[in-house]
Amino acid sequence: MPKAGDKVRVICKDEEIEGILMPSENADSVMIKLGSGYNIGIDRKKIKEIKVIEALKEAKDRSAEKKKQAQQNPKLPNITILHTGGTIASKVDYRTGGVSAKFSPEEMEEKFPEIFKLANIKSKLVFQMFSEDMEPEHWQILAREVKKEVEHGAEGVIITHGTDTMQYTANALSFMLENLSKPVILVGAQRSSDRGSSDAGRNIICAVNFIVKSDFAGVAVCMHKRSGDDSCYIHKGVKVRKIHSSRRDAFRSVNVLPLAEVTKEGRIIPLNKDYEKKGKNDVVLKDKIEKKVEIVKIHPGFNYEIIKMLEEKGYKGIILEGTGLGHAQVNVLDEYTKNHERLLDTIKNTIDKGVVVVMTTQTIFGRVNMNVYSTGRDLQKAGVISGEDMMPETAFVKLSWLLGNYPNDSNKVKELMTKNLRGEITERTEYEEEFI
Amino acid sequence: MPKAGDKVRVICKDEEIEGILMPSENADSVMIKLGSGYNIGIDRKKIKEIKVIEALKEAKDRSAEKKKQAQQNPKLPNITILHTGGTIASKVDYRTGGVSAKFSPEEMEEKFPEIFKLANIKSKLVFQMFSEDMEPEHWQILAREVKKEVEHGAEGVIITHGTDTMQYTANALSFMLENLSKPVILVGAQRSSDRGSSDAGRNIICAVNFIVKSDFAGVAVCMHKRSGDDSCYIHKGVKVRKIHSSRRDAFRSVNVLPLAEVTKEGRIIPLNKDYEKKGKNDVVLKDKIEKKVEIVKIHPGFNYEIIKMLEEKGYKGIILEGTGLGHAQVNVLDEYTKNHERLLDTIKNTIDKGVVVVMTTQTIFGRVNMNVYSTGRDLQKAGVISGEDMMPETAFVKLSWLLGNYPNDSNKVKELMTKNLRGEITERTEYEEEFI
Repeated sequence: MPKAGDKVRVICKDEEIEGILMPSENADSVMIKLGSGYNIGIDRKKIKEIKVIEALKEAKDRSAEKKKQAQQNPKLPNITILHTGGTIASKVDYRTGGVSAKFSPEEMEEKFPEIFKLANIKSKLVFQMFSEDMEPEHWQILAREVKKEVEHGAEGVIITHGTDTMQYTANALSFMLENLSKPVILVGAQRSSDRGSSDAGRNIICAVNFIVKSDFAGVAVCMHKRSGDDSCYIHKGVKVRKIHSSRRDAFRSVNVLPLAEVTKEGRIIPLNKDYEKKGKNDVVLKDKIEKKVEIVKIHPGFNYEIIKMLEEKGYKGIILEGTGLGHAQVNVLDEYTKNHERLLDTIKNTIDKGVVVVMTTQTIFGRVNMNVYSTGRDLQKAGVISGEDMMPETAFVKLSWLLGNYPNDSNKVKELMTKNLRGEITERTEYEEEFI
Repeated sequence: MPKAGDKVRVICKDEEIEGILMPSENADSVMIKLGSGYNIGIDRKKIKEIKVIEALKEAKDRSAEKKKQAQQNPKLPNITILHTGGTIASKVDYRTGGVSAKFSPEEMEEKFPEIFKLANIKSKLVFQMFSEDMEPEHWQILAREVKKEVEHGAEGVIITHGTDTMQYTANALSFMLENLSKPVILVGAQRSSDRGSSDAGRNIICAVNFIVKSDFAGVAVCMHKRSGDDSCYIHKGVKVRKIHSSRRDAFRSVNVLPLAEVTKEGRIIPLNKDYEKKGKNDVVLKDKIEKKVEIVKIHPGFNYEIIKMLEEKGYKGIILEGTGLGHAQVNVLDEYTKNHERLLDTIKNTIDKGVVVVMTTQTIFGRVNMNVYSTGRDLQKAGVISGEDMMPETAFVKLSWLLGNYPNDSNKVKELMTKNLRGEITERTEYEEEFI
């Protein structure tokens, strides 16, 4: 009798399908995870037989794991891997329902023996979730976990994470962990770990190499450089964005160069030296966050009442995703633009009532400059703050964090919003042709 | 006495600044437009003298213009240039307050004589506005103008347009002009026409070459290929996006290759032959549009009440900018995700009340696939429609247009939303490494 997690061959009238048997959600069909990583539902009526090719191996003995964790080499640095779920752990998520077994040090040593030559690896399961389900409260828990590990002697922390909201978590940890003098590297995968094409292992190996061999301190993301090769980029946590839904090289540094490339052989090629260096500072946890903050996208036909609704519902902060250099429709020109004055008035009124409104650009790349055209100047006069070269997502996390930490001081929030705190605002936007 | 529009040298105590004198908004300072295109305000108290270097030339005689327009070569195709304003016309916007003078055929012949060897150029001012102020009503007017020109014998239409919302207009015209068998090319500039580095001329010349030498019919955008060189890309109107706030090569084709490259010498290099060919069809105007449509961005901490507010305010369509493959937080896992069920319920309830909800991805590049993870399947079960490989902006314009044309038939709207009408949905997402 095949069990969920077994590798099976499903024999139908017209075809045979091989894959992993998934826990069934539906009595009428059988769900198979294909080698491609995708799932397929097969009508039970069509199935002649299900053959078990390879039964699911039970999780290894826990005591052996613990023993492994205790075998530390005092000459090597300690690295903690915090697991949160996501595609990087999806094999185990489907097959056994547990992430820990997959990423037990023993299994990892078996699969990536090289990382154990570089560091003492400790593994801990914090969450087991897809990252689209993450809430600001999960950022807070992660920030506390990182602090704990660093205070207990970790020279670096790796966080395995779903890629959907990895950039938001990277931003949140950047702001919540003040004075951080150790590297904290988020690692995801675009192909689940049970696929031959999985990027999970390479990304983790590169992250370990970077932690051990670089002097970088702070929060960063380690993902594939390009889909076609095997080296990784290290992206600053406040300057990284997922810009493809499925490619292995979905993450790109925005408005800065990546910090470094880590080659397949584990060599570090520095690309951008603008970062804090490792040290022995005591990390300061500032994990408060305001949840009444929203992102609003400007577009032709944008309805000004959206802003009004947010103000009336008690929102404390609004990130505008403006057009171009940071614009919205505020000029009254003809009968079709007669509502534009109401948008400008609504924005001004919202700000006058204490809501902090920050302008970013929906172009993602490039910076806001509200001094070039009268549109930008009018918005600034109404009190809209420039997000400079912060991405909308970074501005959103920063504003939520500032409003959490200075709940009754909107002047302080506005002042810090335009000040560079963690590398999120750069004086000059750097890029190379190939980076966008 | 220097007048607005004059080229001046402002002599201060410590420095001398050269540029165009701008109309003054402020009695205490003088505004100068620098050669870089940016404006600088100079305190009047610091100014010792303002010298006129070159007085503003008055607009040329109108009758000469008209005469020029009448001199047509019957062997050449007729091209109409419709002007709408924006940076491409910003020299004149600042100096004389008028766009038409700048783009009179005479002035254009003086500046770009090559285009008059390729076509009979007719020039018409439709709007004089920055594109951030454009509303769906302006799309309607433009669509009607294009139809008129095509029906009066234009072999192609060029629309000069601000770059902020050019992609929205390109999408709108693509849908509004059914059966279009002539090329309609939108052209903008990232540097105003009075700057040495302006891309305005090159973009127009490339557009004329493309219209004359290619067999493409439909709506496209012609902008610089890369910031460093002088050739242009032609991007399909439903597959183009501004992804940089200031670079000359701000526009990129998303999920498809550009249609063609047009070299400095006017040579056409086809890159993507997936388009409609020129013909003699009668264009059908379908310019209705529904304005109660909004774009909502999903993110950690997203408040489900936003969706609820939109439904209560009578919105007919919602574009979700989901994470990754098209996700939102719908899984209840712990105390922090206990509201997720309410988000899913709210989405389902909104759809049950007749609102059309479409999922796109905030990664911009890549396609939505709601079959891979349970998150996507749950959203589909609630009635969310997949936007496939449409960008959020394209899905937004398409949905607004479908709701305008089929106001009482949401099943038809849903059916057409997932059907390829103008090349906005492709079966397979194509890209080359260098294109993102």
